[in-house]
Amino acid sequence: MIISNFFIFVYNIGEIKLERNYYAKLIGRLKMQKRIFSGKFYLLSFNIILLSFLFCPLVGVAQTDPLPSWNDTSTKKYIIQFVQTVTNPGSDDYVEPEDRIATFDNDGNLWIEQPLYTQLAFAIDRIKAMSPEHPEWKDTEPYKSVLKGDYSKLDKNGLLEIISVTHSGMTTEEFELISSAWFKTSKHPRFKRSYSELIYKPMVELLEYLRANGFKTYIVSGGGIDFMRPVTEQLYGIPPEQVVGTSGVSKFEIRDGKPVLVKMPEIFFIDDNEGKPVGIHQFIGKRPIFASGNSDGDYEMLLWTTSGPGKRFGLLLHHDDAEREYAYDRKSHIGKLDKALDAASKNKWVVVSMKRDWKTVFPFEN
Amino acid sequence: MIISNFFIFVYNIGEIKLERNYYAKLIGRLKMQKRIFSGKFYLLSFNIILLSFLFCPLVGVAQTDPLPSWNDTSTKKYIIQFVQTVTNPGSDDYVEPEDRIATFDNDGNLWIEQPLYTQLAFAIDRIKAMSPEHPEWKDTEPYKSVLKGDYSKLDKNGLLEIISVTHSGMTTEEFELISSAWFKTSKHPRFKRSYSELIYKPMVELLEYLRANGFKTYIVSGGGIDFMRPVTEQLYGIPPEQVVGTSGVSKFEIRDGKPVLVKMPEIFFIDDNEGKPVGIHQFIGKRPIFASGNSDGDYEMLLWTTSGPGKRFGLLLHHDDAEREYAYDRKSHIGKLDKALDAASKNKWVVVSMKRDWKTVFPFEN
Repeated sequence: MIISNFFIFVYNIGEIKLERNYYAKLIGRLKMQKRIFSGKFYLLSFNIILLSFLFCPLVGVAQTDPLPSWNDTSTKKYIIQFVQTVTNPGSDDYVEPEDRIATFDNDGNLWIEQPLYTQLAFAIDRIKAMSPEHPEWKDTEPYKSVLKGDYSKLDKNGLLEIISVTHSGMTTEEFELISSAWFKTSKHPRFKRSYSELIYKPMVELLEYLRANGFKTYIVSGGGIDFMRPVTEQLYGIPPEQVVGTSGVSKFEIRDGKPVLVKMPEIFFIDDNEGKPVGIHQFIGKRPIFASGNSDGDYEMLLWTTSGPGKRFGLLLHHDDAEREYAYDRKSHIGKLDKALDAASKNKWVVVSMKRDWKTVFPFEN
Repeated sequence: MIISNFFIFVYNIGEIKLERNYYAKLIGRLKMQKRIFSGKFYLLSFNIILLSFLFCPLVGVAQTDPLPSWNDTSTKKYIIQFVQTVTNPGSDDYVEPEDRIATFDNDGNLWIEQPLYTQLAFAIDRIKAMSPEHPEWKDTEPYKSVLKGDYSKLDKNGLLEIISVTHSGMTTEEFELISSAWFKTSKHPRFKRSYSELIYKPMVELLEYLRANGFKTYIVSGGGIDFMRPVTEQLYGIPPEQVVGTSGVSKFEIRDGKPVLVKMPEIFFIDDNEGKPVGIHQFIGKRPIFASGNSDGDYEMLLWTTSGPGKRFGLLLHHDDAEREYAYDRKSHIGKLDKALDAASKNKWVVVSMKRDWKTVFPFEN
């Protein structure tokens, strides 16, 4: 049995990336050991690692479920089939590792976006925190309503003002401290947990599975780049340089004899709708072969991704689980999913039903 | 001797990245072998690779000169000392691999920029190639002079017009084909070689040396992002997503039922001077610990890089070798180096003399 497993492993060329993952782990362990052991023990421990490396595949890793939080529905099969095909050097649809680009929307796709976008919840909390220094806000809209907890009157201009006031005037490094601190103290109104806990476990597994198969995973979000970057590595294993998003103008200045970048109140780039393929071109310079979104704001990114040559994967997450999360689509103000849902079957995008396809929603569930 | 070399290797923690390089090579070989051998021979070849991996370090790799095209001057020593320090986990100045960001200007720093910027040489060649379709150009400036080979009258507006006409109107994919083809047929007026051969060998070695030590190497250039990206992987081992540069607006459109990105004649972002730290923040989201440039356009990037906490490296390449390349600095229209040269000693930037520090300039020299 063990031997047959080994040969399944060897023959399954699609699994070669799993081996690469072993090397990565091996390197990590080597580095650890290098700090712990002196040179005398080094050669010995090195051999032990080599041996463990040699026997690891024998104990059935090839059979481990890479997506344990996904139910065994056709969706999961499509994902695994796609990954096995594009990583199989014998396949006509083989894709070289450097072209395995996967892009993920963030709001409502990797983290929660209801009842308010996470970044808007941050901005509102900031308005409250900043209000003692702005007594005039008590009598001025949109601040007056926001301070009372009434967000129903927030129109587009009001939103822009609140985002602008809370996201500019400071240096990029100061903003990073402010937003990182907020994630630690924030509390979602329904789940009573920090927003950093309200990420979708199945999607984190999908990101890890893709990376284990040589994909480079990117966030391509309408959300603010400076707001997401300080937390994406910890939440999703995505480093700052792989986060594409909306951004304001930054200005280089010398303050107290030191260079700083100051966040200005003007928009530099809106990474939503048509902006997503543009942002992908600007920041990545390659067309993804895998894209995942959940709203009409992702329509153009999905179209751009799946209309390229060769095998492609478009994933559309449908929030249809009011019990465990939220159910919303065509008529929602946040994360409206209408045009993209209609376009899914024509473009062969896989619609993920949160209710049917996900065993677990949030990491804290088990 | 062999054994002592091995222990030097083991003890020299700074060299750990060389090992990572071995893993990368090993993976490459595994993949090759996987295609060549059937499963039956796989286990055997796998063991041979493991053995060769084990003994490779014994044959003196630790003593190989990582920068063979650099003369043994203090400059080379500073570079190696810096890399050894920041990669030594026992050092107070140790930097985690994810923060080992190195940014390189391109024009005059990685490839030639005299007597005309490479991208300008491309634009002029394009004007000539496009002229049969534009008979009116024979009588209209700046085209008239350019078609006669007289570039002396090209002022800023003329330059912008020539760049705009040759860099917009087509899709991003069409432009990639045009610019890639040009590199194959282009000829430098003095060296009579393609511009893709006129890259600096010592700098390519420096990029490789940094990467072998866990650095992520980026281009941060005033040049056009779409012009550089199709060739940077082949020339420098830098993939498209690690190229930051100046760019025009791209527009998402549906043409013949397919989505395309069309290059528009408007500027989106100028990645020069103050734009370089801004571009670094936008695209990378981290402050580099190593930056290399050769002109006043790199002053702000060098300042931004070297004013961060911890050990930093600023490199300023001085073109002082008229015999092998060109000698120019304070009064040059292209690659003017004045303010940054004056600021070098105060900021402890290492000024590289092409004449004194480089054994070889171009790859074709040996």
